[in-house]
Amino acid sequence: MLITSVEITPIAVQDPPLLNSEGVHQTHALRSVIQVRTDEGLTGLGETYGDDQMLVWLRAVARKLPGTDPFATNLLMATVTEVMEELAGDSANEVPVGAGYPMAGAASSKTKAAVFSAFEVACLDIQGKALGRPLHDLLGGKVRDAVPYSAYLFYKWAEHPDAPYPADSWGEALTPDAMVAQARRMVETYGFTSLKLKGGVLRPGIEIDTVLALHDAFPDYPIRIDPNAAWTVDVAVEVGQRLEGALEYLEDPVGGTPAMAEVARKVSMPLATNMCVTAFEDIPEAVREGAPQVILSDHHFWGGMRQSQVLDGLCQTFGLSLSMHSNTHLGISLAAMTHFGAVSRSLAYSCDTHTPWQTEEIIVPGTLGFENGAVRVPDGPGLGVELDEDAVARLHEQWVKCGVRTRDDVTPMKAVHPEWTGETPRFTSL
Amino acid sequence: MLITSVEITPIAVQDPPLLNSEGVHQTHALRSVIQVRTDEGLTGLGETYGDDQMLVWLRAVARKLPGTDPFATNLLMATVTEVMEELAGDSANEVPVGAGYPMAGAASSKTKAAVFSAFEVACLDIQGKALGRPLHDLLGGKVRDAVPYSAYLFYKWAEHPDAPYPADSWGEALTPDAMVAQARRMVETYGFTSLKLKGGVLRPGIEIDTVLALHDAFPDYPIRIDPNAAWTVDVAVEVGQRLEGALEYLEDPVGGTPAMAEVARKVSMPLATNMCVTAFEDIPEAVREGAPQVILSDHHFWGGMRQSQVLDGLCQTFGLSLSMHSNTHLGISLAAMTHFGAVSRSLAYSCDTHTPWQTEEIIVPGTLGFENGAVRVPDGPGLGVELDEDAVARLHEQWVKCGVRTRDDVTPMKAVHPEWTGETPRFTSL
Repeated sequence: MLITSVEITPIAVQDPPLLNSEGVHQTHALRSVIQVRTDEGLTGLGETYGDDQMLVWLRAVARKLPGTDPFATNLLMATVTEVMEELAGDSANEVPVGAGYPMAGAASSKTKAAVFSAFEVACLDIQGKALGRPLHDLLGGKVRDAVPYSAYLFYKWAEHPDAPYPADSWGEALTPDAMVAQARRMVETYGFTSLKLKGGVLRPGIEIDTVLALHDAFPDYPIRIDPNAAWTVDVAVEVGQRLEGALEYLEDPVGGTPAMAEVARKVSMPLATNMCVTAFEDIPEAVREGAPQVILSDHHFWGGMRQSQVLDGLCQTFGLSLSMHSNTHLGISLAAMTHFGAVSRSLAYSCDTHTPWQTEEIIVPGTLGFENGAVRVPDGPGLGVELDEDAVARLHEQWVKCGVRTRDDVTPMKAVHPEWTGETPRFTSL
Repeated sequence: MLITSVEITPIAVQDPPLLNSEGVHQTHALRSVIQVRTDEGLTGLGETYGDDQMLVWLRAVARKLPGTDPFATNLLMATVTEVMEELAGDSANEVPVGAGYPMAGAASSKTKAAVFSAFEVACLDIQGKALGRPLHDLLGGKVRDAVPYSAYLFYKWAEHPDAPYPADSWGEALTPDAMVAQARRMVETYGFTSLKLKGGVLRPGIEIDTVLALHDAFPDYPIRIDPNAAWTVDVAVEVGQRLEGALEYLEDPVGGTPAMAEVARKVSMPLATNMCVTAFEDIPEAVREGAPQVILSDHHFWGGMRQSQVLDGLCQTFGLSLSMHSNTHLGISLAAMTHFGAVSRSLAYSCDTHTPWQTEEIIVPGTLGFENGAVRVPDGPGLGVELDEDAVARLHEQWVKCGVRTRDDVTPMKAVHPEWTGETPRFTSL
């Protein structure tokens, strides 16, 4: 079986005005839909970032795939490396992708891992379809039937100042009470049994009050907060100490592994990250420093499903725990995340997902759904999801029209608060 | 597809009187042949240790497999853990397996990894056969078409004092000249392009002379020596310093990671091991100590093929190199070793193999062969080898008759040298 063609479709989905330490989500979030086709009539699906820069990289690799074997993902890794190193010579390809991604230029190993991942998932989808087996069977088979996710809570505005579509139904959330209401609705709708609060937005004192209000309202729920490095070490330590007993982990309170380790020594809960440990090359320092203790896996930038399994084994080896990071994503990504969650041995926490914030979808409904806060592991061939071609065409059209081409949370915040820089740490006191 | 039955066949093969720091190989080496059968008429092959103790463990797990899915190897890991922990309650199952294996009692994670591996390989063989794909394709596909092995040189006697079969054709090798002759024959027959000397047998000064004689005779050949912890730190350092420029690595000159690290700081070549780092739990110490720098993988005790890939990723992460260990083995193991060698990214050295010392085989000839010292990666379905049922029956009969039931290199040496203990370190000076 050989690959005959690869289609990369940029799409844009409406995204609510969710706040974080960088600024505010844009009106539209970008994704790429990858379709890898074979001479046996099979199509493998992938989904990843949709920034213009990512599209250049994806397309450069896609051109090399026809004629190759979709089982040969180890060789695909070599192809990606080769293509990306060629591109790195061209300064036009040295632009970093937008906010929130760990990738740098084309030559960076993190970028290569992200580009590889998009195609690896599509190849595994093909393999599963060829074999009539779910993707998780290609990774040793599921060890759980459903993968638990957490309610991802965001401080947010009621609406974007400039969206070409109506405001979302969630309303403003800028106080502890509003956040408890958001959590209640999300828990009622999806059945989540743990909560994740995106922090780094309001003064740390208010975010402490928010966590405590959530803890009061959901006393049995594990809660985590993630201020995306918006705090200084002192602030992080004070927050950690004040939230003792209320947090299952503290995610990226500060930037960089040494600072994380400094915080870890002074608080009782483990520290988690998807910012200072985002690739294998970051792990030795974390092992030396003894923190962070929880790594948020993300197959999109850790180099795909099999490399996520390596990360899993590495966490077991060094006594680290695994949780899972989420960027804005749609159903192909959720399926892949769930397949990895199904096989992971050191997964110790509910995974993150942005699903509740998305009103648009690219897969045919019915396969993936939340029950008691968990997604049942798909057992159909490959990823087990089917592409909704009409939806993809519509969202591609939206991409053409919306004008957003790079993830950038700073500019839309600057439009409202001209003094905004998005720089961290922003908070030097409670 | 479900497993319907599992057959475990102990076999014994004639083994030459090869010397090592423990003593001398017995007249017969033990192996187990594992055949896992499914309701679709497929049979998956595995091969591992054949000690009586191992047979108890293998059979206990084998009883649990009918009715399970050969794709569900992650769940198989849980089954093995459960069975072994039950067995561990029974003191009859606390006997360590024979010399040269890293396993301890039934409850030890190293034992579980070894038991799991035997079945994982057989399950992957089934999967490959079901899919019409070589095993390496289940691991991301080969990155090389042939896997290089080294000439495994042994000091040896001309014959066993008590073998019920004629002496082998290699003759005695107890001097540097004899070793060069052994190397010449092995290189001419198999085309090997690197040499491994099993040391820890003669006085270290003679072993130095042996390496230097090999280096003179094969000036372009990478050479390694493995005295299996027969030396003190001082001896190891002196040997390492005298052999500067002649060794690609020094394997297990001393016992234990701290002692290995002490040697590593004083010699220029990297240190390699299959003794002090034999499981994931041993890696953190090696990373802390900065040595050994080369890990000898062995799917038999690292927990199978996928765990070997985790080890591979771990080596890449921490800047360690991978080589491959060999115990006496036959063709099923050689096939599995070659499939892993085909997909490994950090494999930096030729692999070890005992193949040249074996005169009996369990697979139908034709698939695996050495060309220029390398084995072409099998591309047939699964492992790509076929069991020679008649040979297995004959070697099982030999097992029944030979009386050897546990690997034990000490006792046959003691029969010749009553004062022998097999304890290491044996050499405290050159």
